Amino acid sequence: MLGDRLSTSKAVREEHGRDIAHPDAQPADAVAFPLTTEEVASIVRICHAEGTPVIAYGVGTSLEGHVLAPNGGICIDLGRMDQVVAVNERDLDVTVQPGVTREALNTHLRDTGLFFPIDPGANATLGGMAATRASGTNAVRYGTMRENVLALEVVLADGSIIHTGTRARKSSAGYDLTRLFVGSEGTLGIITQVTLRVHGIPEAMSAAVCTFEDLRGAVETVIETIQLGVPVARIELLDELMIRAVNQYSKLSLREAPTLFLEFHGSQSAVQEHATTVASIAQEHGGQGFEWALKPEERTRLWKARHDAAWAALAMRPGSTSIATDVCVPISRLADCILETKRDVDSVSVWAPIVGHVGDGNFHLVLLVDRANPAEVEAAVQLNERLVRRALQMGGTCTGEHGIGVGKQQFLLEEAGAGGVALMRQIKRTLDPKGILNPGKIFAADP
Amino acid sequence: MLGDRLSTSKAVREEHGRDIAHPDAQPADAVAFPLTTEEVASIVRICHAEGTPVIAYGVGTSLEGHVLAPNGGICIDLGRMDQVVAVNERDLDVTVQPGVTREALNTHLRDTGLFFPIDPGANATLGGMAATRASGTNAVRYGTMRENVLALEVVLADGSIIHTGTRARKSSAGYDLTRLFVGSEGTLGIITQVTLRVHGIPEAMSAAVCTFEDLRGAVETVIETIQLGVPVARIELLDELMIRAVNQYSKLSLREAPTLFLEFHGSQSAVQEHATTVASIAQEHGGQGFEWALKPEERTRLWKARHDAAWAALAMRPGSTSIATDVCVPISRLADCILETKRDVDSVSVWAPIVGHVGDGNFHLVLLVDRANPAEVEAAVQLNERLVRRALQMGGTCTGEHGIGVGKQQFLLEEAGAGGVALMRQIKRTLDPKGILNPGKIFAADP
Repeated sequence: MLGDRLSTSKAVREEHGRDIAHPDAQPADAVAFPLTTEEVASIVRICHAEGTPVIAYGVGTSLEGHVLAPNGGICIDLGRMDQVVAVNERDLDVTVQPGVTREALNTHLRDTGLFFPIDPGANATLGGMAATRASGTNAVRYGTMRENVLALEVVLADGSIIHTGTRARKSSAGYDLTRLFVGSEGTLGIITQVTLRVHGIPEAMSAAVCTFEDLRGAVETVIETIQLGVPVARIELLDELMIRAVNQYSKLSLREAPTLFLEFHGSQSAVQEHATTVASIAQEHGGQGFEWALKPEERTRLWKARHDAAWAALAMRPGSTSIATDVCVPISRLADCILETKRDVDSVSVWAPIVGHVGDGNFHLVLLVDRANPAEVEAAVQLNERLVRRALQMGGTCTGEHGIGVGKQQFLLEEAGAGGVALMRQIKRTLDPKGILNPGKIFAADP
Repeated sequence: MLGDRLSTSKAVREEHGRDIAHPDAQPADAVAFPLTTEEVASIVRICHAEGTPVIAYGVGTSLEGHVLAPNGGICIDLGRMDQVVAVNERDLDVTVQPGVTREALNTHLRDTGLFFPIDPGANATLGGMAATRASGTNAVRYGTMRENVLALEVVLADGSIIHTGTRARKSSAGYDLTRLFVGSEGTLGIITQVTLRVHGIPEAMSAAVCTFEDLRGAVETVIETIQLGVPVARIELLDELMIRAVNQYSKLSLREAPTLFLEFHGSQSAVQEHATTVASIAQEHGGQGFEWALKPEERTRLWKARHDAAWAALAMRPGSTSIATDVCVPISRLADCILETKRDVDSVSVWAPIVGHVGDGNFHLVLLVDRANPAEVEAAVQLNERLVRRALQMGGTCTGEHGIGVGKQQFLLEEAGAGGVALMRQIKRTLDPKGILNPGKIFAADP
């Protein structure tokens, strides 16, 4: 059916069976490269008949082992379904195939005055971002994939095709199937088309960097900004260790201190007003004034450095592997959570620079471990466990944006409770009775 | 178990078995008034064992027959579970029992500087608003219940209790159970606690009224405002017939012409800026200048009149019953949809004033029918069918905010497709295998 668009080459299979955080591949038996929804449906139909696992693949930038194929099966690489199907400029929405990346979409939109704001750093596919409920730096202003997906086309486990949602901005028409598939990590269906909200490019955008005497001052600035309702577009925290890494990697010369990267979107006057408000909050908390990046190329350089932070961290400790953490807490607990975590990090010998989308209460430790050193790996794992339990106790979540995948199944149980996970499993069994869709993710495969 | 908190009185049962749009009661066999989640769970457990229907009731302001009990059973009136459980001022969230009404919540929040913006007009309970995915006049700025519910406590069909979501602003932790229950109309579980986002009261709020030469001018003003990304807090359309009704009912003296009611929230300067922008758009489309309602009491009077529009319409034709329509279309099609509908209304002899949350593309015909006149009722029903199909063809939805209930099941099928509805039914059967939860709503009871 697919001709040379089905590969069983070891290199292709291994490339599709690992992610940054899981370098040891668990390859599928074959990788398919469909071009149409009907081809995806045909592949799934065959796999359904045979009881063969099906693993959807975008571009492999997820972090929780979503693309691993522990039981083999067929990996469906959706990367060649990369067409922008429709741009409805007047409605501020677009419909895309799942393999379109967020950068490709923004390139496509360049002449329309519109942009797609959700930015997880990596140039992920939009199908993958929907499947993992991705967010990133702009979520504090524009929301996550949860808020920005209007409608989906999905191939179900038996190969049937459904459409969820419409292009209407709101609806009370039955169960919210769109939100059921957003964040389902390929375990309930294969997303073959996504309709997304897009936004007008603001009249003015300006970015700024502000350093602080201590971490508390930086975090308190974030908390007050959010509580005041200032509509910052991005407000990102990097601790002094992360700044050191970013300086080295991206050839910057920022002061090695806890730092906020900020961005403001709006009319000229609104941007001015919001920036002034945040600057005065920062000053009260020991902020060292704003350095502005007003020119587009300066802004781009700043955010490129931010996006490369994970790579910068890895480069700071050559030979290390990173374990990403991803808690998100109510904003009032953010200072407690970060400062307690910082003390915890300081008490063990693990390199753990901090970076975070702190406007949402979401931050990451980038745990840099030498995988040849089991004690170090174990210390990092335990540090993460303590961090997750700290966040849960504070009313937070074990994952703000990375998902459950293979590594957080126990944490999901602690967060959602046995009853909540049992209900998720019931839904999984109903939609995928044979358990062929991305087995082993979100919950362990049934015994 | 409940003592006198279980009523079998005919008056109580009938009062709980009808809504404004369905005046002929379909009463339950008894009405229970629980005080705690555990009592709700106990009632549901007994009903589950007996196969007895359970109908959740808030305050009875839904419009699609959600509270009817066609098969009898137990109505659970959650109105006495009316405590505000927690106000987290620093996190801009609250947790409430399901019987707290939106006005009661805002009264409770009065001294905090916070408010809950979602405003469907009626003083509905927050549990009911979550269950029906309600929205209303402020949704264009603040979103609907879909966006503003953070977490839920739910009693499932077997009487078990689960908690969905956390107070974290975002999460990728497994399936989005919160969004599954929001809008499920009491068919998947009974909501016994709701955690909601609340918002800071804006520094400035001002409302305005603007009349237009024709309906097209008013609608084009809305479309351009939304497309420009002006963050209006409310932008409501009333046609000339509705203005006549409102003038009579609320003792106003507005010009009888297509009219927009607007509200702007923000800093003093932002409100000024946004209002100026919209005023100039309106002027280009034949708007007759803005009349400002700057004082709080003027604003309140204006929005009270808007909220009373449905009553005003009924009063305009004494003895009539209203049939509400509720389509929502992509904003680019709003003018086409409203103007074609207006022509359709003019071609039949049905009173049908128009009112709508047009910033979202959502509008209502208030069909005023003499129920003693079958030809008139039939004409109204057919007008609504044509309206829904027009909206679906334009990429819209059959219900922006009222829900499916008993009257829109065929439209849901046309909108979501057989596959989509089959999937909803599978989920329903999985969560409620005995079909005890609000039977006959969203889809017909299984044969």
